[in-house]
Amino acid sequence: MRLGEPGEPGEPGDRTTAVRVEGDFLVDLGLPDVGAVLASAGGLTAAETADGPRYPATGAEFATLVPRPSKVVCVGLNYQNHIKEMGRDLPEYPTLFCKFADTLIGAHDAIQRPAETDAFDWEAELAVVIGRQVRRADEAAAKAAIAGFTVLNDVTCRDWQFRTREWLQGKNWDSTTPVGPCLVTADEIGGPRPALDIRCEVNGRVMQQDNTGDLLFDPVDLVRYVSTMVRLNPGDIIATGTPGGVGHARKPPVFLQAGDLVVTEIAGLGRLENHVVAEAAR
Amino acid sequence: MRLGEPGEPGEPGDRTTAVRVEGDFLVDLGLPDVGAVLASAGGLTAAETADGPRYPATGAEFATLVPRPSKVVCVGLNYQNHIKEMGRDLPEYPTLFCKFADTLIGAHDAIQRPAETDAFDWEAELAVVIGRQVRRADEAAAKAAIAGFTVLNDVTCRDWQFRTREWLQGKNWDSTTPVGPCLVTADEIGGPRPALDIRCEVNGRVMQQDNTGDLLFDPVDLVRYVSTMVRLNPGDIIATGTPGGVGHARKPPVFLQAGDLVVTEIAGLGRLENHVVAEAAR
Repeated sequence: MRLGEPGEPGEPGDRTTAVRVEGDFLVDLGLPDVGAVLASAGGLTAAETADGPRYPATGAEFATLVPRPSKVVCVGLNYQNHIKEMGRDLPEYPTLFCKFADTLIGAHDAIQRPAETDAFDWEAELAVVIGRQVRRADEAAAKAAIAGFTVLNDVTCRDWQFRTREWLQGKNWDSTTPVGPCLVTADEIGGPRPALDIRCEVNGRVMQQDNTGDLLFDPVDLVRYVSTMVRLNPGDIIATGTPGGVGHARKPPVFLQAGDLVVTEIAGLGRLENHVVAEAAR
Repeated sequence: MRLGEPGEPGEPGDRTTAVRVEGDFLVDLGLPDVGAVLASAGGLTAAETADGPRYPATGAEFATLVPRPSKVVCVGLNYQNHIKEMGRDLPEYPTLFCKFADTLIGAHDAIQRPAETDAFDWEAELAVVIGRQVRRADEAAAKAAIAGFTVLNDVTCRDWQFRTREWLQGKNWDSTTPVGPCLVTADEIGGPRPALDIRCEVNGRVMQQDNTGDLLFDPVDLVRYVSTMVRLNPGDIIATGTPGGVGHARKPPVFLQAGDLVVTEIAGLGRLENHVVAEAAR
């Protein structure tokens, strides 16, 4: 099953409608967004059979998948190939940081490039979407808590990321993080530990290319680890980390400029297409 | 003006009512919590004159001040005395990390000590509460965006904090962070850069004692800095950092155990009194 929410670009949470994607049609689920579907009593099960008005899928612009998750947990270095190529040992624990919901945008929304950065960089990531509340999940509970997966690009201001020892301030700029286009349930992509090709292109040039099967801490591991400390709620997102090929590690470094087109794609999940625009001061 | 929300301990967001404290009485504001008051059209101005049922203040247990802030931004090392005593240079930028809303508890709720930590520590902090949406605030806009202040204790699992280079996983355990008891507006405590005695006691022993006037990055600076990157919304919280005297820096280290009483107090703002209990697995 695939769920999403067409809506006005750049206005997450406003004027959106959750839909189930059925081939060339979208079935209106009568709720504002996928977060509301996951939090509803019927959850994914009800969404699978719900009927409603149908719209053509052509031309739909998908808003950010969950406009107000209670948490967006992000993982640092997690692709084994990339860790080894950096000459590091495999870590014992995942490195975690967060994103605030105000960073999130839709699958075709413009990425707002702030004037304050000189090092605006891409990070293609597989994102886990939580479907039910869970704390201290064991293996079975972690699998059951995963509603599905989507595509995310953790666009980062590298200069701000490295201003201090904590990464938060490089990772939390307003309207910089596309998420979507759809929630795809695990049964469509081979289960809760999917091995899918992941890729990021900038202006048609492939910058990152790997496979999500290379994750050191996989989606089930991450739900277990994070839920040890804090409850995960329906609609919460775990961004699982990015493979090699980011701009600041290139020689010479390459960074995003206004006018660039960033395409982030995971086979079987879908594709984000986001133009970079110079953010207007406000 | 002082605003708070009496409610059932341990059930933030459930069965609470926002009130204005008027001496020995609480005036019901007809909204569920202080977050809802700040997000309402009338905001603080309406709350100042609103009338409603009155309850005696005696015995009221205040729930966490804002149950669902869109962000809780926390600051690392920020007391100048403490930075100097640690032999460090004053930093150029504030170090920022986050807390998820599920960590928050009320002024008298039990702090849930997880079985997974051997290093459960206190951090008394002044917290700034945002009253209106702001982005890229200048000095005047930052002052105007501050609804007021409250008391927070950033209780931390040190062992998990230092598992990786990011602090998040030491700082985000469910139901560990008391916030309250009230929002106190800046006019009651000498303006938006208050110089107030701050103190943390564990079982009656003073562990931390300083003055919020010693903050390197003060509340107005922090609203300016954080709002450069991301919008701040009504009800958002900035925890301004903790002074010296935390348990892991003591020789020998002292950590919180089940049964301990943690009192966190800021002169003019109020007092948190929280017992530490062993968290039941769930």
